[in-house]
Amino acid sequence: MQTPWENRFAQRTQHMGSSAVRELLKFTELPDVISFAGGMPAPEVFPIEEFRAACERVLKDFGPQSLQYGTTEGFLPLREMIARHSARYGIDVTPDNIMITSGSQQALDLLGKILINPGDHILVESPTYLGALQAWNVYGAEYVVVEADEHGMVTDALEEGLRSGPKFIYVLPNFQNPTGATLSLERRHRLIELADQYGVPIVEDDPYGQLRFEGEHLPSVVVLDGQFRDNCQPCYRGNVIYLSTFSKILAPGLRLAWVIAPPVVIRKLVQAKQGADLHTSTFNQLVAHEVGRGGFLDRHIHTIRRVYRERRDVMLAAMDGYFPPGVEWTHPEGGLFLWGILPEGLNSNEVFTMAVDRKVAFVPGGAFYPRGGGENTMRLNFSNATPEKIREGIARLGRVLQEKLEA
Amino acid sequence: MQTPWENRFAQRTQHMGSSAVRELLKFTELPDVISFAGGMPAPEVFPIEEFRAACERVLKDFGPQSLQYGTTEGFLPLREMIARHSARYGIDVTPDNIMITSGSQQALDLLGKILINPGDHILVESPTYLGALQAWNVYGAEYVVVEADEHGMVTDALEEGLRSGPKFIYVLPNFQNPTGATLSLERRHRLIELADQYGVPIVEDDPYGQLRFEGEHLPSVVVLDGQFRDNCQPCYRGNVIYLSTFSKILAPGLRLAWVIAPPVVIRKLVQAKQGADLHTSTFNQLVAHEVGRGGFLDRHIHTIRRVYRERRDVMLAAMDGYFPPGVEWTHPEGGLFLWGILPEGLNSNEVFTMAVDRKVAFVPGGAFYPRGGGENTMRLNFSNATPEKIREGIARLGRVLQEKLEA
Repeated sequence: MQTPWENRFAQRTQHMGSSAVRELLKFTELPDVISFAGGMPAPEVFPIEEFRAACERVLKDFGPQSLQYGTTEGFLPLREMIARHSARYGIDVTPDNIMITSGSQQALDLLGKILINPGDHILVESPTYLGALQAWNVYGAEYVVVEADEHGMVTDALEEGLRSGPKFIYVLPNFQNPTGATLSLERRHRLIELADQYGVPIVEDDPYGQLRFEGEHLPSVVVLDGQFRDNCQPCYRGNVIYLSTFSKILAPGLRLAWVIAPPVVIRKLVQAKQGADLHTSTFNQLVAHEVGRGGFLDRHIHTIRRVYRERRDVMLAAMDGYFPPGVEWTHPEGGLFLWGILPEGLNSNEVFTMAVDRKVAFVPGGAFYPRGGGENTMRLNFSNATPEKIREGIARLGRVLQEKLEA
Repeated sequence: MQTPWENRFAQRTQHMGSSAVRELLKFTELPDVISFAGGMPAPEVFPIEEFRAACERVLKDFGPQSLQYGTTEGFLPLREMIARHSARYGIDVTPDNIMITSGSQQALDLLGKILINPGDHILVESPTYLGALQAWNVYGAEYVVVEADEHGMVTDALEEGLRSGPKFIYVLPNFQNPTGATLSLERRHRLIELADQYGVPIVEDDPYGQLRFEGEHLPSVVVLDGQFRDNCQPCYRGNVIYLSTFSKILAPGLRLAWVIAPPVVIRKLVQAKQGADLHTSTFNQLVAHEVGRGGFLDRHIHTIRRVYRERRDVMLAAMDGYFPPGVEWTHPEGGLFLWGILPEGLNSNEVFTMAVDRKVAFVPGGAFYPRGGGENTMRLNFSNATPEKIREGIARLGRVLQEKLEA
């Protein structure tokens, strides 16, 4: 049907990012395909019974208030719970530093809205989280990239990027999406030092930090930043905006996340959110608070760590067994993803096409490089499939890689 | 605390709109204040027991799927239910024409994102819905205004606005926010004719259309547009993007609304939503579907109409009894709001200040005028307060007006 809309889309819709990956990923939803492509939590860990009880209690105790409009910054007891939860990870903030968002994706969108003018430079790791690029492309962001390796952002290469005057630095220090890499403690310190020296703030995206299943917990960048200069411990210095979410520690279907920022930034975010979706679901905020309080969240995180550790181990063992020599991969100590590196010359898009034919899927890594590269890389999710499916899927993928290498 | 954020906000944050109204409205939340300021549904009509049963059934029947990530366009059975529900109001569309949004506010934001370039003209009624202006200011919209009277947008004045080449026309034809006015059938036809003649599409915002409690239902602009030229009945011609919501017919705390548009626009909206919040809460979509199906929605809408009709009647009768001569007001046939017009020279901001002192609140009307005006107008909500509170609040407001007139 002819409509007058076709020619009316704003210029910014040209920058929404190619739909190539999205098109590819449609194949991953076919029946029988074992998919390591998404970033979905294990459905087996969702606390269904706790949710049932919480819904009942919330509707009983709060009645109509649970279904009514709420405040834009979010339900105060939930923000208080997040403040307490954050304190256990060394982040010392009050509810005035916290705004509830409709998933971390919304926090990225609102940060783009309040911070990015067309042409602004944003300093990102390469590879980095695709969703951040999708959120910021529409505001006309341009990306200055700093290479990342198995210890995260290569901070030795950071100064060159900082000289371009970026609006902020975007970093995922823990079990990064897509590589699963963790920023080393030394590099965290260096990042904070350089950001301070150049007067550039940091946006720390930390959806997975609580899901460490081996090795020692590293303090978040926001925590180390608080100790920088004043050495007050703990404190919040305000140079780091910190994002985290209930999606990976409770349930993504709630669309509940939070942003920690100085009050001056929170006020701007609240204004932006008011225009974007008014507020996040009252009912979901009350239910998440009801499920999470009384220590359940901490206990539940232990369950998730146990399940994900097993799945990561199964995937690593299967890769050891089934992947041909020359293929390498990361050994993440937490989170949801690991990263495969194919021998030079092997293109992961081509591997993907054959893999989907053989009923196994992953995300070709090139999509995560804001300025190109990574054609021989692949992101594999280990949280969603059961151990049996993981073994079978990796076996299938191993055969595809073997054939591609022999071709 | 000094942080580097203050000077880093994007230019667009300057256009987020004055916080004057928001500041004013804080006073309306004080205890003992009878507030006609918000736009909240009556909490008494929320179907708490139906929600309790629906949460239980959804968690039992769908299990983990109800808490998992979902698709960006929304839960298909909910979109099918909306298509059936729309058909009862003459809107003939398929689920491919429907995207679920996180409240209608998000639909406004996403339309701004995909359609508005800085400096684009948007043709709006004056006064119009403040939330649309808040959503679009950040994208650099400029407003061409067409006066509205007790029969809605004055279409005789529309051509002048259309000559400025607006990107689209934004109209709330039913029980408009803020005035409560309904666009007459004749003007609806004229609007469609002129939009077609000038090749300008229409965004029809219809949160209240189903809440008519007297008079004859008027077909939506989207329905009449379908009958234009082809005279196919019913059909969807695609020149009108139509917004509606569960906020006023079920519960606003769910943050669930929908947009109806041609597939080419839906695809762009899906891309934009993916970057904005990935998708709307899976759980809430499943619960709304469970509550709404089987005819409940239609029965419930009858209940809401009955309750709101009573409250409107109580408010109108109280105004007749308590308001001094010279004050005028609209008699809306549905919706949530009515509109007061004070004698020239009486400033509703000043009335507001005294009113809050006397523990009664409304929204001074000037805020709804994109290009100024309306200093002697006020928006009164009649859906939220009980009949007793409405009588008492209007009596207080009457005394304030009397004093102001005598001063």
